[in-house]
Amino acid sequence: MRIAQISPLMEAVPPKLYGGTERIVAYLTDALVGMGHKVTLFASGDSVTAASLAAACPQALRLDPTIRDHLAPLIAMLEIVAQRAGEFDVIHLHCDYLGYLALRRAGTPFLATLHGRLDLPELKPLYSVFCDVPVVSISDAQRAPLPQAHYIGTVPHGLPEELLLPGSGTGGYLAFLGRISPEKAPDRAIRIAALAGMKLKIAAKIDRVDQQYFKEQIEPLLAQPHVEFVGEISEAEKSEFLGNAAGLVFPIAWREPFGLAMVEAMACGTPVVAMRNGSVPEVVDEGVTGFIVASETEAALAARRLNQLDRARIRHVFEKRFTAQRMAKDYVSLYHRLIAGLEPERGDMTTKHRDAIAA
Amino acid sequence: MRIAQISPLMEAVPPKLYGGTERIVAYLTDALVGMGHKVTLFASGDSVTAASLAAACPQALRLDPTIRDHLAPLIAMLEIVAQRAGEFDVIHLHCDYLGYLALRRAGTPFLATLHGRLDLPELKPLYSVFCDVPVVSISDAQRAPLPQAHYIGTVPHGLPEELLLPGSGTGGYLAFLGRISPEKAPDRAIRIAALAGMKLKIAAKIDRVDQQYFKEQIEPLLAQPHVEFVGEISEAEKSEFLGNAAGLVFPIAWREPFGLAMVEAMACGTPVVAMRNGSVPEVVDEGVTGFIVASETEAALAARRLNQLDRARIRHVFEKRFTAQRMAKDYVSLYHRLIAGLEPERGDMTTKHRDAIAA
Repeated sequence: MRIAQISPLMEAVPPKLYGGTERIVAYLTDALVGMGHKVTLFASGDSVTAASLAAACPQALRLDPTIRDHLAPLIAMLEIVAQRAGEFDVIHLHCDYLGYLALRRAGTPFLATLHGRLDLPELKPLYSVFCDVPVVSISDAQRAPLPQAHYIGTVPHGLPEELLLPGSGTGGYLAFLGRISPEKAPDRAIRIAALAGMKLKIAAKIDRVDQQYFKEQIEPLLAQPHVEFVGEISEAEKSEFLGNAAGLVFPIAWREPFGLAMVEAMACGTPVVAMRNGSVPEVVDEGVTGFIVASETEAALAARRLNQLDRARIRHVFEKRFTAQRMAKDYVSLYHRLIAGLEPERGDMTTKHRDAIAA
Repeated sequence: MRIAQISPLMEAVPPKLYGGTERIVAYLTDALVGMGHKVTLFASGDSVTAASLAAACPQALRLDPTIRDHLAPLIAMLEIVAQRAGEFDVIHLHCDYLGYLALRRAGTPFLATLHGRLDLPELKPLYSVFCDVPVVSISDAQRAPLPQAHYIGTVPHGLPEELLLPGSGTGGYLAFLGRISPEKAPDRAIRIAALAGMKLKIAAKIDRVDQQYFKEQIEPLLAQPHVEFVGEISEAEKSEFLGNAAGLVFPIAWREPFGLAMVEAMACGTPVVAMRNGSVPEVVDEGVTGFIVASETEAALAARRLNQLDRARIRHVFEKRFTAQRMAKDYVSLYHRLIAGLEPERGDMTTKHRDAIAA
């Protein structure tokens, strides 16, 4: 199949450090190439991929101080995608709704993965207009605030099978991994670890918008003896950080759309203590890969029981449910359905006949 | 002619106070309706127009605190415009390049007025991709940093003839009108007035991005006895503010794309002292409607000579060159050229025959 993957341009594919969407685009793209598909990746020029790279700008926009208008390079890329639409069997958007305008009239089937939160009020009128654009949610829970979109499936994220490797979990600490932000609730993690009488290591990025929150709400808590703040860590450091942990604390205070950190922990054989919210019940298998809790007290009690879970079995669940290959297969089956579903409208008798023969 | 005017959504059409683009959209739309055209205005729901209003959102986005993503309503509007494209003979965009994606494949001739600065580096690759989109500059000078765009004409802005009325100019002060920002250079205006030994009244808006500049660079200068800071004024107050002034100081420190304040002054019969930059030589008739200068000293000398200029003649030049009716006529002739120029590609023999008869 000839597939175009359309990435946002803020980060490279894959991103140098933190960066959820572009990381998934990288894993999916390489897995599709591994399956033998002909993939073209539209992304920033500093991306590294097994696919054919169509560079939309020299480098990731977040790192380019000369760019004042971050929209212009994205719009130019989308027009080029529309002009080249005939070269592809299917076009897969990861840059939100901007691509809909370009691709609605370009003649090639397309779909969009919704990577972010869907509870902003202005999305409702937008998806009333784009109510027939095929979109993919990354968890079923993600859909709730925006039922008017045309969901054609849920595809949970996946990681390359050998990206992170199982660890022993003998470090004895709880791990917190992600961003320092109110919705990720590092303050809760600190209190949970204290209640459980365990050490907590925090590996997290601080975005500019969260600097004030960090200074005022979190930094004062870091002086406690059970807390160690590690800062932002790279992909290469994750196996050790997660693999040595007794468990990952995922005490989120928002409707988490997916929560890649939970899957990263599972890849290391590390169980998860997660607050019941958003995607959590879809990602964590209760009593197998972790514990789903409703309060900080419950979380602390669960943290004490993490050593009852079988780390080899957790890794096995990861391999079954959350690899990039599984994700790529899910998408390919959606691509097929999409191409087949659109054919009656755009195809002529010759096309239909050819399809009948091929079937 | 059936014409769609597509406004940005940040301000109402016309805006309540300052707001360049939406003001011009209002003047143009009403003038086109006055000429007998069937005009549909796509804009925020709090707009007031003689055209048929297609409300894209309940109120101007700048005033709506519930909106976090300002792009979503614009994208939804552009998709609706594309879906309704067949209802119009021509579509006129005022919301920058976002509309190109939607309208390139919608089948109706369209053009875009470029209302802003064109010297951002990311616009060059964008207009290499959109090199055949017909665009209109608001001055010839505006084009210089972006020669690769497909300009089909320059249409200077215009005001409704009776919006502002001539004044006596007997207030004896110099006027500064616009935004407090480094490129509008109110500091220069203050120094020029001091050199000329004249009073200066400043009527200006302070945008959030310019708050620091105002506090640090401008506010300390306002204590001087020859300076009076009036704040932001409404349309209704402009005739008096400009009409009583001996002249408008327009000491810009950037490539001004148009400079509506100069035309507003002329409508009041008030001459202009303007720094040679951007559109200035195209708007000011040297020695007739004002003086074009190259330094603050020259500006001060010119300010002393403003009473030599004939205020009735200045108003006459305004009526000839800068009314909304003249602007609307210019655009209608571009619309005709555009429709005629596109016809050979999309029209069938019947259409061509009908055109030949009409010609």
